[in-house]
Amino acid sequence: MSYLLTPGPLTTSATVKQAMLRDWGSRDDAFLEMNDELRRRLVDLAHGAGTHECVLLQGSGTFAVEATLATLVPRGGKLLVLVNGAYGRRMVHMCQVMSRTVDYLEWPEDVVVDPAVLAARLADDQAISHVAVVHCETTSGILNPLADIARVTADAGRHLIVDAMSSFGAIDLDVQRLPATAVVASSNKCLQGVPGVGFAVIRRDVLALCDGNSHSLSLDLFAQWRGFEANRQWRFTPPTHVLAALRTALEEHEAEGGVEGRGRRYARNHDVLVAGMAAMGFRCLIDPDVQAPIIVTFLTPASPLFDFKVFYHLLAQEGFVIYPGKLTVADSFRIGCIGDLDDTTMRSALAAVARAMSVMGLQSGSPADS
Amino acid sequence: MSYLLTPGPLTTSATVKQAMLRDWGSRDDAFLEMNDELRRRLVDLAHGAGTHECVLLQGSGTFAVEATLATLVPRGGKLLVLVNGAYGRRMVHMCQVMSRTVDYLEWPEDVVVDPAVLAARLADDQAISHVAVVHCETTSGILNPLADIARVTADAGRHLIVDAMSSFGAIDLDVQRLPATAVVASSNKCLQGVPGVGFAVIRRDVLALCDGNSHSLSLDLFAQWRGFEANRQWRFTPPTHVLAALRTALEEHEAEGGVEGRGRRYARNHDVLVAGMAAMGFRCLIDPDVQAPIIVTFLTPASPLFDFKVFYHLLAQEGFVIYPGKLTVADSFRIGCIGDLDDTTMRSALAAVARAMSVMGLQSGSPADS
Repeated sequence: MSYLLTPGPLTTSATVKQAMLRDWGSRDDAFLEMNDELRRRLVDLAHGAGTHECVLLQGSGTFAVEATLATLVPRGGKLLVLVNGAYGRRMVHMCQVMSRTVDYLEWPEDVVVDPAVLAARLADDQAISHVAVVHCETTSGILNPLADIARVTADAGRHLIVDAMSSFGAIDLDVQRLPATAVVASSNKCLQGVPGVGFAVIRRDVLALCDGNSHSLSLDLFAQWRGFEANRQWRFTPPTHVLAALRTALEEHEAEGGVEGRGRRYARNHDVLVAGMAAMGFRCLIDPDVQAPIIVTFLTPASPLFDFKVFYHLLAQEGFVIYPGKLTVADSFRIGCIGDLDDTTMRSALAAVARAMSVMGLQSGSPADS
Repeated sequence: MSYLLTPGPLTTSATVKQAMLRDWGSRDDAFLEMNDELRRRLVDLAHGAGTHECVLLQGSGTFAVEATLATLVPRGGKLLVLVNGAYGRRMVHMCQVMSRTVDYLEWPEDVVVDPAVLAARLADDQAISHVAVVHCETTSGILNPLADIARVTADAGRHLIVDAMSSFGAIDLDVQRLPATAVVASSNKCLQGVPGVGFAVIRRDVLALCDGNSHSLSLDLFAQWRGFEANRQWRFTPPTHVLAALRTALEEHEAEGGVEGRGRRYARNHDVLVAGMAAMGFRCLIDPDVQAPIIVTFLTPASPLFDFKVFYHLLAQEGFVIYPGKLTVADSFRIGCIGDLDDTTMRSALAAVARAMSVMGLQSGSPADS
């Protein structure tokens, strides 16, 4: 058994996986009740009860993001994407593919989005109807200043769409207080389910006006929502086992103390990881003030003795799967703090890192300078 | 435990479900080898080795159908859909949503598509570049004459796209001999995996020319294929557990004797079901000559004592989940012959049907006439 120190798919509990040991009829009452429960729990996690609806969608998180943009931004609308990493860039790309008007503001991957620049752009360009931002950019692990971004967007009378893929369930996000028109996430990150379903929590009064916006039958969240409302069923075959796993995962999330409890454990994982890696001379890309406790980007040590592939395989042999870098600005690798693992796991991973460094001939005390 | 006598999600084996009891890193070697194996096995099942590629896609079968149409039919192309049920109509609808030029020929739900009518239309309309048809229409359970449709389409020099959702793995389909440019199916029907992934087996030389056709980033099978070819990875988070279940399902499919063995068991299930239901007076919608051994549509008995909801719940209480009708032409219900079940299961289901008829006050000998 390996621990997945990745941004997901990640290590899930045995009980979450065991929830998949049953087949469900997709039109059967017991399954429909599961749908209802999932939708209610996810809205509650976003503090959207009364104002927002949860629309579940088959596929990966990217499918849910594309569906949300396609459904919410009308054909005559204009989306402004705040970009400081690959997932922001991906939103721009998907709008280009679906021929939706899109513009973007871009910052380096190790710098947070600047709400003042956003405010100026919104004042300048009245055509912008929607703003989209990634809450925690998995590319680097940076946490964007969502409260300020939401305030600026709301003050300018525009809609905010938040890609909360990597933060949902571990960092509190209140759609009413922010406010946010929509928040998008998936089963297989901080909620600790298995991959195969995404969802958006969307303002009901806005969603109700989105008939015909989507470019795609499969990715139409208005039609998907109307389907759930009409007969509690999915329009197209749902990933029944994945959903059963998600229900157990949400029960375990609640038992851990919800967003606060889960966030606390991840913060401890993060602190142990970063302190241990720093003691071995590894440097983080992101400033501690804006580093989310989700995934940490470490700069590749300068020594020619350090070979990422060797490092990866040495750790994998010991049961720890880490993640390659995705940066354009620097050579790096990533280690995740999320999933069914705790500070003991992180200490074991650190011991494996120390052994790997030693095997590569690097003093584990100061690999970066050796 | 219930048996799902439905068109899927259906009853899977315990071992298929147990394959989901492990977490997989989506960039780890063991997982990449699983992808390679799945893609190879699925191409082989369609007899496409050497000419065709398998492109896996997250989501339900409908997602894979939409992605295939979007990727293969160029923006300037024209699709002709042969419709005799809801899944044919859905292909027309998805083209309308994605603003692709589409036309259709339609037959009643209990009548097969007529290749001669297709031939005439293809001769009349040179703008038609692609023809799409559902092999086994799950709406009714009818089996369309695929060999003749393929011959007519090939003779006219057009591309054929087959929705083989309900037949793939149980009814032989040879993409080279037909020929077919693309065949689309999913994990959770005759392959007896769990739902959450679809796939298309597509002619490589055609797919290679499809860059930029898709209306959607998520549903772009050209880009998805290039991703697999580039680094064996999925572009976006794969449903790892669903894929692991599919691999075990494909091993079990092979052990059963492949398409032939699986088809033989389903045919026996079908024969036992239809004979037993006929003995109780139930009438099938579809003529035996064109009935696929996948799912059977029974006409609702005329007696006012017969109430489908009561019937459904009585069977469900005994552990047999059946399926409502989807016909526009007649009141009906459906019973599936597919999944991890055999003729003993079907006999038990028939006994439960007899008891349910008796509870409703219908003589089980002749419910249709009582």
